[in-house]
Amino acid sequence: MLTLHTWTTPNGRKVPIMLEELGLPYTIKTVNLKENEQFQPAFLALSPNNKIPAIEDTDENGKRFSIFESGAILTYLAEKTGKLLPISGPERYKVLEWLHWQIGGLGPMLGQVGFFTRSEEKSGLAIKHFVDEADRLLTVMDKQLSQHDYIAGAAYSIADIACYPWAVGVLDKLKPALGDKLDSKPHLQRWLKRIGERPAVQRGMALPRI
Amino acid sequence: MLTLHTWTTPNGRKVPIMLEELGLPYTIKTVNLKENEQFQPAFLALSPNNKIPAIEDTDENGKRFSIFESGAILTYLAEKTGKLLPISGPERYKVLEWLHWQIGGLGPMLGQVGFFTRSEEKSGLAIKHFVDEADRLLTVMDKQLSQHDYIAGAAYSIADIACYPWAVGVLDKLKPALGDKLDSKPHLQRWLKRIGERPAVQRGMALPRI
Ligand SMILES: N[C@@H](CCC(=O)N[C@@H](CS)C(=O)NCC(=O)O)C(=O)O
Ligand SMILES: N[C@@H](CCC(=O)N[C@@H](CS)C(=O)NCC(=O)O)C(=O)O
Repeated sequence: MLTLHTWTTPNGRKVPIMLEELGLPYTIKTVNLKENEQFQPAFLALSPNNKIPAIEDTDENGKRFSIFESGAILTYLAEKTGKLLPISGPERYKVLEWLHWQIGGLGPMLGQVGFFTRSEEKSGLAIKHFVDEADRLLTVMDKQLSQHDYIAGAAYSIADIACYPWAVGVLDKLKPALGDKLDSKPHLQRWLKRIGERPAVQRGMALPRI
Repeated sequence: MLTLHTWTTPNGRKVPIMLEELGLPYTIKTVNLKENEQFQPAFLALSPNNKIPAIEDTDENGKRFSIFESGAILTYLAEKTGKLLPISGPERYKVLEWLHWQIGGLGPMLGQVGFFTRSEEKSGLAIKHFVDEADRLLTVMDKQLSQHDYIAGAAYSIADIACYPWAVGVLDKLKPALGDKLDSKPHLQRWLKRIGERPAVQRGMALPRI
């Protein structure tokens, strides 16, 4: 059976959403980041970058293997099941480009907004830099969603699953820093509502239970 | 023919290296970031996030299509040619996990070291935060390379191509902030030397010519 090592953060919720969408059986092991459990040797053996999420699964020869990095895990699960990522053609690379955009842009930049606004020592320069970059990225997303129902085009995909837990955080944990930035982004708001109504997304966003 | 839109930066050099490794024919169009050419409408139509690199290629039906995000482009070129990314099995996902690690970690964090050390207004908090994170990431890479010849295991892959232009920057543009961090990372140094000796890497790192 597939084992998912995760926690209650945006990156930690992408994989539960995906597994719920696919209906695959899995068990969850929590990695409590508040207790620094990501530095325990058994977890580092799976995820040498000391970050959740990571999974363990069984390969075709019955051997256990592991994957870290949410983008790699989402791609693996999509390729294992043939779902939520076209197997070839330009549509495949539309999904991968927006997946990478989330991994390299939306995620780390919203993460830095969180870090610098929560930090006791304040840097006005850093807060402005990352709030501006976050707003730029949310504007790119709003524009894309003004032309397409889903982030990578006409179909729901792993790119939506990767972006959702981060984008919805703008209405929640990041609201003090960024909440009003959504007022001017109606297409992003519509997408947030549409994705948030999916039962699998609702189940995944409530995981892991702690 | 494949058209590559790029500039002389770390992300901009990954794709020329890949194309040189593959021996595929291509033409380069420069996008001069110093002249803000990434904001020109014709480029934004290919790359709505206003960043290089982007490519245009012809699909199986003779239709032109484009891809942005270096990780998506490297994956596309690997899948188009069947090279530098195993087509299935755990080894495939080892490559994808380290590719995503570069896209979401090494790249953006070294990028922020560059931004905050070059900024006229100084934030000691931000510089320390990103220098520490960069050193942590380079330590993860050194440890991985103490156990494997290449970043994702025994074989050279698109993960090495993604990491190289960033890691070599530590000896160049980022040397004032990070140069001494490599002194304690012999495995990373050995890998930098090995990758840097590849003729395709040398050709790619000299592109685009401006
Ligand atoms: N690019 C990674 C980022 C993962 C990540 O940042 N995880 C955070 C939680 S959202 C974490 O585990 N932080 C603990 C730490 O860095 O020590 C991915 O998408 O999987
Ligand atoms: N995650 C992206 C990052 C691309 C990126 O940051 N490109 C920079 C140059 S290295 C750029 O075009 N910057 C121009 C801008 O942001 O306006 C990728 O890997 O393609």
